[in-house]
Amino acid sequence: MREPQQERSRTTRRRLLEAATACLPELGWTRTTVAVVAERAGVSRGAAQHHFPAREDLVTAAVQHISDVQVAELHEKAAQLPSGPVRTEAVVAMLLDLYTGPTFRAALHLWVAASTEEQLGAIVRPLEAHVGREAHRTAVELLGVDETVQGVRETVQATLDLARGLGLANLLSDDAARRRKIVRQWTALIEPTLAEASTGARSAG
Amino acid sequence: MREPQQERSRTTRRRLLEAATACLPELGWTRTTVAVVAERAGVSRGAAQHHFPAREDLVTAAVQHISDVQVAELHEKAAQLPSGPVRTEAVVAMLLDLYTGPTFRAALHLWVAASTEEQLGAIVRPLEAHVGREAHRTAVELLGVDETVQGVRETVQATLDLARGLGLANLLSDDAARRRKIVRQWTALIEPTLAEASTGARSAG
Repeated sequence: MREPQQERSRTTRRRLLEAATACLPELGWTRTTVAVVAERAGVSRGAAQHHFPAREDLVTAAVQHISDVQVAELHEKAAQLPSGPVRTEAVVAMLLDLYTGPTFRAALHLWVAASTEEQLGAIVRPLEAHVGREAHRTAVELLGVDETVQGVRETVQATLDLARGLGLANLLSDDAARRRKIVRQWTALIEPTLAEASTGARSAG
Repeated sequence: MREPQQERSRTTRRRLLEAATACLPELGWTRTTVAVVAERAGVSRGAAQHHFPAREDLVTAAVQHISDVQVAELHEKAAQLPSGPVRTEAVVAMLLDLYTGPTFRAALHLWVAASTEEQLGAIVRPLEAHVGREAHRTAVELLGVDETVQGVRETVQATLDLARGLGLANLLSDDAARRRKIVRQWTALIEPTLAEASTGARSAG
């Protein structure tokens, strides 16, 4: 009986995390309470509070969970990309789309709330740093570049900062058409720097 | 008697706009009410409501006002910049610092609230578009480039999207040291594109 119970517990936890991620961009931080998320997930309030005593725990775990899922998805998608020169543009497109969905909007609600609430800020700051490092590591891998070559680290950082800015531009209106043109131009601008720092993995498919 | 009264009215209005911009990043959208802003500005609630019947009017006027002030300040600062090759990096530094202060945080609270409140979204969307166009026009002027040259418009757009992403990265912690390195690398990446599209104004000081 032990295994199924652990599995049920994991399922409950995952449903709560997914419900929290869905609630944040719809309701904002103030209205995303453990009770509201439990109801959305179809989980009793008691069970929800057993997993996540406070809303801070629930929401930060949700952002962490979805960030992990996104990184895994990026690796999967990248494995299917063609090798050769079209690869860079495809990777740049994936990276610049990274923050245009509901997950980024959920995180954004959390970051903005954390900027006015000191207690929440203390929880969110290390989470933001961790999520940022994971995204950076993933971008370096997918682009297949050696970070120790001069200017490469900053180029990758700028790509992810640009992605966050594009996420913001996509918040209130669909910005996909403009973003496609920026992907093309951005790729053209950074391609020479990346080519000089290639680890070989970037054209290996 | 007419002139001083008009002037008093303008002063009251400006004090309300400045108080609203100060309140938003501290208190968030939910707690930034006309009453709270009026108290901060040292203006009676009646006078505040005469100028701004609803909080939406007050807050959007504040974001608009501060955007105008910022654009004017950019032009002033740019007029003092040296001519020649160092000018581009100085302009890029100004642009990439654009969204790292309390004004951006105020606007961010407004954008995020607008993403969950349809009524507010309808007011904020055209404001965001207007502020974005002004920033773009200013960037084109300060960089001294011809936008009709291929790739230039997207390069300028990417610079401002990058600036917004850097604003986000600066929300919870001071990101200035990392930003300085990105300014240098970004300038190196876009300089060839800008040089080909120079209007002559960019080296004119």
